[in-house]
Amino acid sequence: MSVHHVLIDGEWRAAEGTERFRAVEPATASPIDEWYPVSARSDLERAIEAGAEAARDLAELPDEARARFLERYADLIEGAKDALVASAHRETALPASPRLADVELPRTTGQLRLAANAARSGAWAQPTIDTRNNVRSIFGPLGGPVVIFGPNNFPLAFNSISGGDFAAAIAAGNPVIAKGHPAHPTTTRLLAELAAQAVIDTGLPPASVQLVYHMAPDDGLWLVSDPRVGATAYTGSRRSGLALKAAADEAGRPIYLELGSINPVFVLPNALRERADEIAKEYVTSALMGAGQFCTNPGIVVLLATPEADAFLDAVRERFEKMPTGTLLDEGTCVRLGESVAALERSGAEVVTGGMRDDGAGFRFRNTLLRTTGARFLASPEELQREAFGPAGLFVFAGDDSEMEAIASVLEGSLTGTFYTARDDSDDVLYERLEKLVRPRVGRLLNDKMPTGVAVSPAMNHGGPFPATGHPGFTAVGIPRSLLRFAQLRSYDNVRDSRLPAALRDRNPTGELPRSIDGEWTTKDIGESS
Amino acid sequence: MSVHHVLIDGEWRAAEGTERFRAVEPATASPIDEWYPVSARSDLERAIEAGAEAARDLAELPDEARARFLERYADLIEGAKDALVASAHRETALPASPRLADVELPRTTGQLRLAANAARSGAWAQPTIDTRNNVRSIFGPLGGPVVIFGPNNFPLAFNSISGGDFAAAIAAGNPVIAKGHPAHPTTTRLLAELAAQAVIDTGLPPASVQLVYHMAPDDGLWLVSDPRVGATAYTGSRRSGLALKAAADEAGRPIYLELGSINPVFVLPNALRERADEIAKEYVTSALMGAGQFCTNPGIVVLLATPEADAFLDAVRERFEKMPTGTLLDEGTCVRLGESVAALERSGAEVVTGGMRDDGAGFRFRNTLLRTTGARFLASPEELQREAFGPAGLFVFAGDDSEMEAIASVLEGSLTGTFYTARDDSDDVLYERLEKLVRPRVGRLLNDKMPTGVAVSPAMNHGGPFPATGHPGFTAVGIPRSLLRFAQLRSYDNVRDSRLPAALRDRNPTGELPRSIDGEWTTKDIGESS
Repeated sequence: MSVHHVLIDGEWRAAEGTERFRAVEPATASPIDEWYPVSARSDLERAIEAGAEAARDLAELPDEARARFLERYADLIEGAKDALVASAHRETALPASPRLADVELPRTTGQLRLAANAARSGAWAQPTIDTRNNVRSIFGPLGGPVVIFGPNNFPLAFNSISGGDFAAAIAAGNPVIAKGHPAHPTTTRLLAELAAQAVIDTGLPPASVQLVYHMAPDDGLWLVSDPRVGATAYTGSRRSGLALKAAADEAGRPIYLELGSINPVFVLPNALRERADEIAKEYVTSALMGAGQFCTNPGIVVLLATPEADAFLDAVRERFEKMPTGTLLDEGTCVRLGESVAALERSGAEVVTGGMRDDGAGFRFRNTLLRTTGARFLASPEELQREAFGPAGLFVFAGDDSEMEAIASVLEGSLTGTFYTARDDSDDVLYERLEKLVRPRVGRLLNDKMPTGVAVSPAMNHGGPFPATGHPGFTAVGIPRSLLRFAQLRSYDNVRDSRLPAALRDRNPTGELPRSIDGEWTTKDIGESS
Repeated sequence: MSVHHVLIDGEWRAAEGTERFRAVEPATASPIDEWYPVSARSDLERAIEAGAEAARDLAELPDEARARFLERYADLIEGAKDALVASAHRETALPASPRLADVELPRTTGQLRLAANAARSGAWAQPTIDTRNNVRSIFGPLGGPVVIFGPNNFPLAFNSISGGDFAAAIAAGNPVIAKGHPAHPTTTRLLAELAAQAVIDTGLPPASVQLVYHMAPDDGLWLVSDPRVGATAYTGSRRSGLALKAAADEAGRPIYLELGSINPVFVLPNALRERADEIAKEYVTSALMGAGQFCTNPGIVVLLATPEADAFLDAVRERFEKMPTGTLLDEGTCVRLGESVAALERSGAEVVTGGMRDDGAGFRFRNTLLRTTGARFLASPEELQREAFGPAGLFVFAGDDSEMEAIASVLEGSLTGTFYTARDDSDDVLYERLEKLVRPRVGRLLNDKMPTGVAVSPAMNHGGPFPATGHPGFTAVGIPRSLLRFAQLRSYDNVRDSRLPAALRDRNPTGELPRSIDGEWTTKDIGESS
């Protein structure tokens, strides 16, 4: 039995350590016959040391080198599209088309190319010059490798070795130590092979991209605490994320978390009177897309207890029952969803439909709808905000406007908050009362649109207050802003022009780089007199 | 015996709790006859609750309201200049002139006015619009009060109720709960009285500015962990700061620390040959200014062991012995400095001059110079990087260029790193080797200039990697960037124009606000077509 190798310092080598694992095909619940290693701490030590050296070497190369790498990698991914989609489909049960081939893969290459543009332009680093004091600043790399833990739900676009965090970390000038998700190791390996090829093709330092598949939990805590590590990005479950955060925080190492979120949706009464069917359809599509396995899945719907709301629930229930049961990403997702539904029931929610595993092969859970009252929600707000990751949603029926406000006041931090209101202004008074309570609790606020689409936009915030993420000022999606998570602010005081980074010299290096000079964004050079 | 009141929810009221304290005049070591309270947790609970309400109310006011407050406050501080300077001088022993009256007070009012400009312009919040996706983002307030712990060494410009953190938190739209430093409570009270007046004069919510003087350490941990608190800023000792950080981190509350730093200075051999006297003079001025009690004090000087370096040390020693002994801020500073010098000696440093408390009244410690070799430094790098806060410096004599590089490689995160090099290019090869090692370890890199001057510049970084601060991407000084510590990234997806913050609407609210629209900084409106 051969075990696949890890990628460390530019070489595929046998992992140290004796543990190994196989992924399981979610559609059949049978193991896939490819063995992957659980790395010992000595693997990680080598990766950190090589990564620290790569960080120094990357700093010597022009921005163009990283841009070319990211573009070459995107090209290689497109060239290997069929194999990648087939593997990701087998390992995750996500539909090959349109999801993987037509949405997620193009998103992945699109992100890599946007990151290449960002690295090449340099505008992301916000070069800032104060000519009076001759102080200049710019964001630069962290000086050590960025460790990325990828989630199970986007095998390509958030993969630790090809996703948004990867693209951002590299674009900002940092090497990456990727820790693949154990549910899709083959997809991760195929990507890593392409990344390693792109490293060679474009002459980046060999340890710019490294990969391990798995490690003991304690070794993960050790890794993110190492002072040579620049930062860590983690997307996944709250429990593991908080353990990593505690370790990184104690060591003073930056860590960015994306821990999931309940993403409340407020459907205001006149919107429901106006277009209940339309909203029901949008909700069901959003709630069940990808079997509900999105960070921005609309987990809670808050509405006024009216006859229209009852009819709305009924319409949603019918659609939930009619829609086929999706296959979940892995056994753990299926088990945890059952646990969450049971916990919600214990806290006062009732199952309207679903609520149990589905028969037949693979990891399947019925489309699940729960309901509760505003009063019960307010009696157990923490318990009833438990995330039920998967095809499940909770409807909360508030007795009146004030109870809706009370519900808004106890919401935990979420990635998104959504309002559906009437097309005329008849919901606007209530909207205003609720919006001011919801706004500080969510990263992205939506109107009349479900939260599951996350555009790769410079204005996107795929982030939000704790416990959705670890810091309310950063986003995991959206270029160039996502790069700032992996950057150090570097100020230069009275430093000679020839010793400055090109972006901070008197002469604008390209003539096109926007720089803030004495408070104004400009592409001009600094005059001889200053 | 009357005990001064705390400022909570717009009222001066008796603190709950029975503990009280007096400050001590550093010049005489005698207590000042003004009693201040140690607040009980119930005071803090009231302040948090009122602060949370003020956060909501502040969000309803235009930016102009906060700008007017900051300016009115600056005016009132100037009107009370004599009393403030006299009190600060008595409580800190810092010279009334030029330090307090001519440098620190104007810096304080200057910061408040710059913050007012930032709040008024709104450019700090980086409004970003993606017209294709109709996604828009902007930084906004945190939704809860910012807790500020001020240090002992800047009774005005970093005071929790008037300093840089205060100005930044208010400008970004957050109320402040100030925790004054117990070494200068009267100065803090005088400032708070002016701030409270300015709140009334400009119609801010009453709890926009609140003040407590002291609290039990456990209550501090409780305070910074409260989910209603937006963030915490702390400037002070590493020990207390790390305890607060652990508590805030565990609760997922953002905290910004400024924990001091050794601020290495590399004097390269040809610079020393060229202008040793000049550099000695600059070093001594910087090292002993304010009795060395600056976060950016040059704590370690690294040089090659050459005859010129010996002469340089000698010249510095002579100046240290000739300069009068300064009075330290408080007993604690004096005691800790003695402990640090003793610890440095135990780790292999030798005292060249000073090293002990000075005779006479008050808290005085002799100007202290220590020396060690590169080899000893490398044998105990952590111990020999212990900060000796006060008028003390350590010279490290490296055997050769490689040893200098080895020293650069073990430096902890610092606020600043400085290089003195020859005016010609004769030090440039060594500079390049060392700079790449030092750059990622410091927030601000200087050439031919000592680090103690911290200009309030948009390009300043008064920050740096752990353990100098808690996050390498933020600065405590420099407007508008310092505001971003106290801000939440807020994205709006498909939100109706009339419901957007003015800065994100199609029409530029002032015609002058720079906004990033589809990747370009512009002051234009968005056209009808988009």
